Amino acid sequence: MSTSAAQQPSPQLFFQTINAHQRTEALKAALELEVFTAIGEGNTTPAEIAQRCQTAERGMRILCDYLTIMEMLTKQGDRYGLTLDSATFLDKRSPAYLGSATEFLCSPEMFENTKRLADAVRKGGTVMEAEGTVSNENPVWVKFARGMAPLMAMPAQLMAKLVDPQPAGKLKILDIAAGHGLFGIAFATNNPQAEITALDWKPVLEVAKENAQKAGVSDRYHTIEGSAFDVEFGSGYDLVLLTNFLHHFDPPANETLLRKVHAALADGGRAATLEFVPNDDRVTPPDAAGFSLIMLIGTPSGDAYTFSELEKMFANAGFSRSTLHPLPPTFQQVVVSEK
Amino acid sequence: MSTSAAQQPSPQLFFQTINAHQRTEALKAALELEVFTAIGEGNTTPAEIAQRCQTAERGMRILCDYLTIMEMLTKQGDRYGLTLDSATFLDKRSPAYLGSATEFLCSPEMFENTKRLADAVRKGGTVMEAEGTVSNENPVWVKFARGMAPLMAMPAQLMAKLVDPQPAGKLKILDIAAGHGLFGIAFATNNPQAEITALDWKPVLEVAKENAQKAGVSDRYHTIEGSAFDVEFGSGYDLVLLTNFLHHFDPPANETLLRKVHAALADGGRAATLEFVPNDDRVTPPDAAGFSLIMLIGTPSGDAYTFSELEKMFANAGFSRSTLHPLPPTFQQVVVSEK
Repeated sequence: MSTSAAQQPSPQLFFQTINAHQRTEALKAALELEVFTAIGEGNTTPAEIAQRCQTAERGMRILCDYLTIMEMLTKQGDRYGLTLDSATFLDKRSPAYLGSATEFLCSPEMFENTKRLADAVRKGGTVMEAEGTVSNENPVWVKFARGMAPLMAMPAQLMAKLVDPQPAGKLKILDIAAGHGLFGIAFATNNPQAEITALDWKPVLEVAKENAQKAGVSDRYHTIEGSAFDVEFGSGYDLVLLTNFLHHFDPPANETLLRKVHAALADGGRAATLEFVPNDDRVTPPDAAGFSLIMLIGTPSGDAYTFSELEKMFANAGFSRSTLHPLPPTFQQVVVSEK
Repeated sequence: MSTSAAQQPSPQLFFQTINAHQRTEALKAALELEVFTAIGEGNTTPAEIAQRCQTAERGMRILCDYLTIMEMLTKQGDRYGLTLDSATFLDKRSPAYLGSATEFLCSPEMFENTKRLADAVRKGGTVMEAEGTVSNENPVWVKFARGMAPLMAMPAQLMAKLVDPQPAGKLKILDIAAGHGLFGIAFATNNPQAEITALDWKPVLEVAKENAQKAGVSDRYHTIEGSAFDVEFGSGYDLVLLTNFLHHFDPPANETLLRKVHAALADGGRAATLEFVPNDDRVTPPDAAGFSLIMLIGTPSGDAYTFSELEKMFANAGFSRSTLHPLPPTFQQVVVSEK
């Protein structure tokens, strides 16, 4: 494109953005119809895939072309294939299948509230009843624990290796708002001497306990039922995990919580926080920075915090030093804070 | 990124796609709150924009960051600015403001039907009542005519210059499914001797007539009320315009219509068709190819046709030759077919 063409205004981005919801719906429809699974099984022409998924051939051809445009399929002649990502995450037969995450990410409540974004901007926080997703015992977190586990297995293992790189000796760990439990469980499988105490609401802990059993670490897996803001943590922990938790609350609430964390740690103990951490400009990197909008939609005062902001919350709560660690290939980062 | 990192599966595309509907909602909210207009007026900090738009500052900061991530705003320090595209198309004070197009593109019916995409794939066509958007006298086309006009002014002018590059002498034009009328009107303003006959349903023609009056070409603007499939066209036309029309129907229906068009043309006459024309692979270029999904959602058997398919329809209807012409910077193309 010549310079003058590049400087000509174009409505292309407007079009793509106003129609972006079609991308979400195309992926949802493909998962519902098991299109990726069908292709993984060896059905590759529109006719074959349509027969396997019990749809019209014409509808399947148009959907598969759209998935190809979105780079979720490949196309050679009239045959479709899976990309590495779709084979790994979108074929039901894959252990890393993410289809169940859509139950949480695409719940009708989530969609309804996203539609009320203008109201959330006016108010400066969620327009959902009570306190949105962070309301007491909100059942959305059971959905989260069940649906998001496959998405979290890889980051959990990466985080365990980052924070406990040479496992040797006892490690007493508190996993706050454990959810599916996969983070604590990854530390337990990484280090045979790690003892995990998972904290969450009772119905959520049921999911975590199931996962601990599947991973064969039940004998080193303990639980505390309730809200992290209310219950006693106990003491003498070597490590406290705060994974995808602080973004739901404002800095004063986080500092209150972090003071409790600080008190529960043994001398030399550490807190390890997994977060979406935008740069100070708050608009890069895009995936981490964009998470802020989800917090505006779903919580009264949550946010995607920069490292300076997180560092300050930990310092105010008494921690001596925080360091930031990327966790590639995820777009989240780990903050390690020393007592 | 190293080769091995590039070959590692990543859930990033899954995440971006499942959340893509947030992009649509962020743009809709920004238009509703007049964020782009506020910035164009000189309000550039979150506090200033929030005050102008009567929202919370925190909500506005998060929304503007998200718009920046989507490349619809710029950000320097804590000050936001408009991009060339957003100044042109998203600031209410701009003559090319597209905000009204969202009424058509984001109508609740459109969203509801997009949500039922899996059903449309099963059926191979729209699951809307009757015949979807192409049902007789569907009021959506009045919304279309009013809302989409600003989006069409530029393509209409480009198309008139392409098809009638050296206006000289009388040109009798039939504008089929004229909608807002802008295509025929552009030919009339381009060529003072052009006479336009616009064909559409009566309530839609009211919009076209208003636009013809605004453009000062009413004295050369005639109308035929009704469906293009039913009414008499008259005869002796030098040019018949088919803009964004053929994609709503299947090839046999189009051929029936094109035979009527052929008969209505004078010797040496031409049909000029504006369409989303994918390459033969049906997956490139992305914007044209992706339009097919919208036809699956909204019509019983419409499609984005390749040039070979369009060429064949025109040939079967008696046209001697068709040629394809890009219309940059739009992502549509013009097919000129000779009688």
